[in-house]
Amino acid sequence: MKQLSKQYKNELLNNVIPFWTKNCPDKKYGGYFTMLDYDGSVYETAKYMWMQWRIVWMYCELYQQIEPKQEWLDLAQQGYDFLTKYGKDKQGRYYFALAQDGTPTIAPYNVFSECFAVMGAAALYRITGNENVKTEAINAYNQYQARKNNPKAEWSKSLPGSTNYLSLGYYMMQANLDQVMADCLNDYSYLESAADNANLVLDKFWNPEEKVIFENALPDGTFDLKSVAGRQLNPGHALEAMWFLMNTAKQRGDEKTIAKTADIILHTLEHGWDTEYGGIYYFMDVQNRPQIALESNMKLWWVHCEALIACLMADKYTENKRFKDWFTKVHNWTWEHFPDKENGEWFGYLDRQGTPTHHLKGGKWKTFFHLPRALLICSQILE
Amino acid sequence: MKQLSKQYKNELLNNVIPFWTKNCPDKKYGGYFTMLDYDGSVYETAKYMWMQWRIVWMYCELYQQIEPKQEWLDLAQQGYDFLTKYGKDKQGRYYFALAQDGTPTIAPYNVFSECFAVMGAAALYRITGNENVKTEAINAYNQYQARKNNPKAEWSKSLPGSTNYLSLGYYMMQANLDQVMADCLNDYSYLESAADNANLVLDKFWNPEEKVIFENALPDGTFDLKSVAGRQLNPGHALEAMWFLMNTAKQRGDEKTIAKTADIILHTLEHGWDTEYGGIYYFMDVQNRPQIALESNMKLWWVHCEALIACLMADKYTENKRFKDWFTKVHNWTWEHFPDKENGEWFGYLDRQGTPTHHLKGGKWKTFFHLPRALLICSQILE
Repeated sequence: MKQLSKQYKNELLNNVIPFWTKNCPDKKYGGYFTMLDYDGSVYETAKYMWMQWRIVWMYCELYQQIEPKQEWLDLAQQGYDFLTKYGKDKQGRYYFALAQDGTPTIAPYNVFSECFAVMGAAALYRITGNENVKTEAINAYNQYQARKNNPKAEWSKSLPGSTNYLSLGYYMMQANLDQVMADCLNDYSYLESAADNANLVLDKFWNPEEKVIFENALPDGTFDLKSVAGRQLNPGHALEAMWFLMNTAKQRGDEKTIAKTADIILHTLEHGWDTEYGGIYYFMDVQNRPQIALESNMKLWWVHCEALIACLMADKYTENKRFKDWFTKVHNWTWEHFPDKENGEWFGYLDRQGTPTHHLKGGKWKTFFHLPRALLICSQILE
Repeated sequence: MKQLSKQYKNELLNNVIPFWTKNCPDKKYGGYFTMLDYDGSVYETAKYMWMQWRIVWMYCELYQQIEPKQEWLDLAQQGYDFLTKYGKDKQGRYYFALAQDGTPTIAPYNVFSECFAVMGAAALYRITGNENVKTEAINAYNQYQARKNNPKAEWSKSLPGSTNYLSLGYYMMQANLDQVMADCLNDYSYLESAADNANLVLDKFWNPEEKVIFENALPDGTFDLKSVAGRQLNPGHALEAMWFLMNTAKQRGDEKTIAKTADIILHTLEHGWDTEYGGIYYFMDVQNRPQIALESNMKLWWVHCEALIACLMADKYTENKRFKDWFTKVHNWTWEHFPDKENGEWFGYLDRQGTPTHHLKGGKWKTFFHLPRALLICSQILE
């Protein structure tokens, strides 16, 4: 355990952090480069809001959890300054992307931009105590509340005749944001909403007959087994949601939810594991009917990062010995396939067999977030 | 050659057509099921407009090119009736998708719906001579003209600060539609626009230094090598565009364009071929920098269908013997990997190595179109 803890911490401190700290800061305009090739070189300068704000959060988290290194705080602060200066439209909604110099390029059609702004600003406030930063976090949080029932706003293509699904992501994100706000603003009134949303996730998305977490549920508590979206499973997402919920349940001493999330983690691992080639699938269909997403059977770094955290947290908070075995299995496959031993950091995308299909280290959907967060949390639990 | 021609025609008549004719008609509501599993069973009843109208066109084309079979005309007509009854919003724009009963579910955000409506309606008019159907074709054609400079209309997420690319698809589609209108409406005034658009494609998207067709070009005739979109290549799309252009050039006796498109086909095959595992890549980056699309190195049925047509057409219209070799190479790989020998029809999606990743026969993006069209055209050329 001690040895493993060292392995995770060493990978974080001596591989992943140096890779990003060297390559991601945009010293000219502020903010970050996230489109990084295998060797850290920048292959595009677009600034995607999700990717940007997650870096703000991550550097704050490192400062908070590892050591109060001024460099990390400065990196978070400069990103925050850039993003709050250029990032919002007149209604205070965060754009989806900016050009390198801050010119908005993609409309604020995606409310998760606000979510990552909440996380970044709240974490920075916890360190600096700056009231403006707190206000930013609260504003972004309120934007999310205002937008979450119509998250795509005027850019939604769904017509009234389409099926109205509840999406796991929004509920799981709400539970996560409430926890972040409670922790960073030291305001535990948020935890009530966190608990409510945790219950909603377990009530609406978990199907005890099939023993799976669905990605999309019907508002009446049933599932739409007649459509691709209704049958879709996303094991990595389910595992991420479960360790979020387990973590918040632990804080409030809710043993029932801890047991339930642990049970779901176990079923998700068993169902999501590829028994032929190893690793966890990206998307699945509960009836093994066709997938539309072409990447469905690929193996993604973040899925495995979330799985590692889920295994270790469930091992820590329950007596069930199977989590140790699962951790070993996921750990071995992950470390064998994802790290780029030549150029540092990890590959993000492997085919089903485990061969890298892409050589990027950062992109439109991969940034300094899932991997360092998993290395940090795993090293802490293992310790 | 004769033997090969038989192989293509046999596959069309005794495998692909029966598979779709048995499984795709929705006898209750009209229109078609396109979400077909490996065995032809329906895994979702959504009706995506691109997929629907392409079937109308395909059955008309079979009627026109093979034999005037009443069943094929009836199948086209019933789809046409359903789509024109339910398919349009108040502004006459075609929705992206309908529910099984015709209720609109996804907004008309994609102007290619209009394009496939032009093709379907024009082809049906050629057979039936029905003036209402001709009007439908002309209206859809005019919609495309009105919308093509702002094709995503109010659903566009691009802000003024984003890079303004010309997209190969729109120009290639325009050239194709003009040809279809000329042929089906017997109105050769459309051919002038077809020739203009062909020249535009060759001028704007072909880069003679790199010897590639770019997917996105800058309006000033240069290329944006600093972004993922600007560097993106789509060999299948380039091959499809080139045989379109070559075909129309042949009709107007434009030997210069025939030679140029043949040259581009050769370069595209050489550049797009996977020398390690065989087959043609889906997406590439001109500088081999990272791809964002997760399916980039996968092998798709339609890419290989278009490549087969391009090889045979170039072989027929030029003296260059290398097209015969290329046809053999593409033919062998395609027939070895895509046909589902057990359940009929072809798989659509293979990983880089050539193993099927999906078992669907029809989906949101695969319908009764690329494969039967390629089998038909190839069998005709081979004959």
